[in-house]
Amino acid sequence: MSVFTEFDLMREYHHSGGKIVLLVMDGLGGLPMQPGGKTELESAVKPNLDRLAAEGTTGLSIPIRVGIEPGSGPAHLSLFSYDPVRYEIGRGVLEALGIGFDLQPDDLAARGNFATADAEGRITDRRAGRIGTEECKRLAAKLQAATGNLFPDYQVIVEPVKEHRFVFVLRGPGLGGELSETDPLVTGKAPLPVVDASGSAEGAHTAALVNRWVEAARAALADEPKANSLNLRGIAKDPGLPRFPQIYGLRAAALAVYPMYKGVARLVGMEVVDFPGERPEHQVDALERVWNDYDFFFIHIKKTDSYGEDGNFDAKVHEIEAVDAVIPRILALQPGALIVTGDHSTPAKLKSHSWHPVPTLLWSPTVLPDNATTFGERACMGGGLGLFHATNLLPLAMSHAGRLGRFGA
Amino acid sequence: MSVFTEFDLMREYHHSGGKIVLLVMDGLGGLPMQPGGKTELESAVKPNLDRLAAEGTTGLSIPIRVGIEPGSGPAHLSLFSYDPVRYEIGRGVLEALGIGFDLQPDDLAARGNFATADAEGRITDRRAGRIGTEECKRLAAKLQAATGNLFPDYQVIVEPVKEHRFVFVLRGPGLGGELSETDPLVTGKAPLPVVDASGSAEGAHTAALVNRWVEAARAALADEPKANSLNLRGIAKDPGLPRFPQIYGLRAAALAVYPMYKGVARLVGMEVVDFPGERPEHQVDALERVWNDYDFFFIHIKKTDSYGEDGNFDAKVHEIEAVDAVIPRILALQPGALIVTGDHSTPAKLKSHSWHPVPTLLWSPTVLPDNATTFGERACMGGGLGLFHATNLLPLAMSHAGRLGRFGA
Repeated sequence: MSVFTEFDLMREYHHSGGKIVLLVMDGLGGLPMQPGGKTELESAVKPNLDRLAAEGTTGLSIPIRVGIEPGSGPAHLSLFSYDPVRYEIGRGVLEALGIGFDLQPDDLAARGNFATADAEGRITDRRAGRIGTEECKRLAAKLQAATGNLFPDYQVIVEPVKEHRFVFVLRGPGLGGELSETDPLVTGKAPLPVVDASGSAEGAHTAALVNRWVEAARAALADEPKANSLNLRGIAKDPGLPRFPQIYGLRAAALAVYPMYKGVARLVGMEVVDFPGERPEHQVDALERVWNDYDFFFIHIKKTDSYGEDGNFDAKVHEIEAVDAVIPRILALQPGALIVTGDHSTPAKLKSHSWHPVPTLLWSPTVLPDNATTFGERACMGGGLGLFHATNLLPLAMSHAGRLGRFGA
Repeated sequence: MSVFTEFDLMREYHHSGGKIVLLVMDGLGGLPMQPGGKTELESAVKPNLDRLAAEGTTGLSIPIRVGIEPGSGPAHLSLFSYDPVRYEIGRGVLEALGIGFDLQPDDLAARGNFATADAEGRITDRRAGRIGTEECKRLAAKLQAATGNLFPDYQVIVEPVKEHRFVFVLRGPGLGGELSETDPLVTGKAPLPVVDASGSAEGAHTAALVNRWVEAARAALADEPKANSLNLRGIAKDPGLPRFPQIYGLRAAALAVYPMYKGVARLVGMEVVDFPGERPEHQVDALERVWNDYDFFFIHIKKTDSYGEDGNFDAKVHEIEAVDAVIPRILALQPGALIVTGDHSTPAKLKSHSWHPVPTLLWSPTVLPDNATTFGERACMGGGLGLFHATNLLPLAMSHAGRLGRFGA
């Protein structure tokens, strides 16, 4: 008996074929604001998406596990067909990759948050009032100057990201472990020391280095009026995931606006395509431009999630409608398979990510259309895709794009 | 790379939140008696359950594996989110826990059945005409007196249960193995010797001890007019399951009438709440009384199954209606999540447990209502829960009750 993983199957059976588009509206799934009402997706006027649902097959996707509220990083890994419970990645790694930082395999990365603290060091604002990005750049440069040479054997790199967020990278030999975060997650408490849970010498050594850096960095910020403290989260190394282009034989491009989604795409080996503008139409401009250079295209729409988090039902509806408007341009490129889905649900009613399964459609000339005639959470119930784990989507798209051979004779 | 089990996820991400009620109608699923007819659940007049289905989400639950007819013990383990194929438990352990016996971790327990046999020892009635419980007590005391000191290094404990059923416990060092049962399962055959399948010295030793006890016990019963023989089934130790309250962070109460269901609840660490009466309304009396003391409530309704086993379609329908009548009292307590399901199907038409998936509804303020407007097997097909493994229910209820944090950032 041999044990194939899903990835082994894909590596062995893939061949050339049509192009695949994975269009992700972040936080797509929703809830009615009132009993008996419609969800955001059900409320949107979206003739093109409805046509895709009618011509295609639909279902509800489980990003992580039944009942588990997904973070964005693991939820995207799942859409890329990596089981996120098996492949764990740190937020620091995602953030570093997201800003295009050339992370090395042995680098330790953390997400940094500038914060404010009172005289006793207790955190008073975990995001330092979301300071502007220019201020973030100035503070990161200050930290770089003050702590870049803190350790004789290690290089410290501090890179600004956006608002209160920065990336901390430690480069040198023998880093590792399972490191806890410094963020107490509530205000009024002192930051926590980094602790290693692996029990390894490497982990203890790394925790000590990080703690020393945090102390030096906070000292350097002590006189800053807007951000006199900081926290580190998701402190880890690149987990070295299997490479997406090799597993599927796909030249893969990511068309994303936000750093973290670029980061998770880079993490699996996709190429990030830069483009001017931030709206869905700008993303499709870029798609048209690079269509002949790649086989797979991940398009990430952020604002559906942002509006969901804000509790802004109507703005989320309008963003879905804006995406609907660009669908004909994507279809005009004649993809072999087009997936429209979300990484997770973000109901405006809950103002938060949620565990509800995600409405999903797969359109392809070889799809057997199911009974759904519109694209919506309830239209997708009982659809041809059923209730499925998100990692199943890509193998299915591969087949519909004519890219997978037969298993057995 | 880390490998999380589902329980690891729950242990790591649970926090406080709303209360969860798991209402189990044993053997709930059914079949029409005639082609074109309705099932028991579909036939019942049950406005409250129908309302829950309309406001909630529905589906069909697979207790063990597709096509596998479930026993009650494993089917309940599955509802408690323990995969019963992975976590095997002996019927003796269940029975012992069910009568409140203080089973120790190294005890070997078996379910005993008083039986009748002919002059050659062949079983003539596997249940000894279901002798009365008083007779059962007398016979158990007789066995205790006759065999309690059979082994110098081991303690033998015989406890009556109900009708023809008793518990046999062997206490002492080095017990174990994978032991077969003595019950030939048909009349007209001689009982079987206990055989160990583990091949271990411990197993061979234990099998020999049990066989010696069975021989001595049958000799002690030889002159009994109503029960001159016995059989042992499900001979095993407590498997030491992970504890439900620790996995989920739930103070868990079981409101059951029958010993075995109390037993399986105790086995995972729930507390069994005693109450006067045996009807659903008495169980809800108790629920109201202990509502503030626990976070999770398992309510077990037995008679839906008993009537199914009897082939009494109408009585099963009426029992469902009796449960329907207490639903408003449960809702008045404002649970965060309410599950109504069965442990398995027991169609009156088959007079037996069956493998048919089990109609299930989940009601919560955060549920997206699906298209089902009544509670029934066919209404649940295509519901929002899909066709799912029963172990998924509890994580889902945890999220809906607001008790789970986010996975990843």
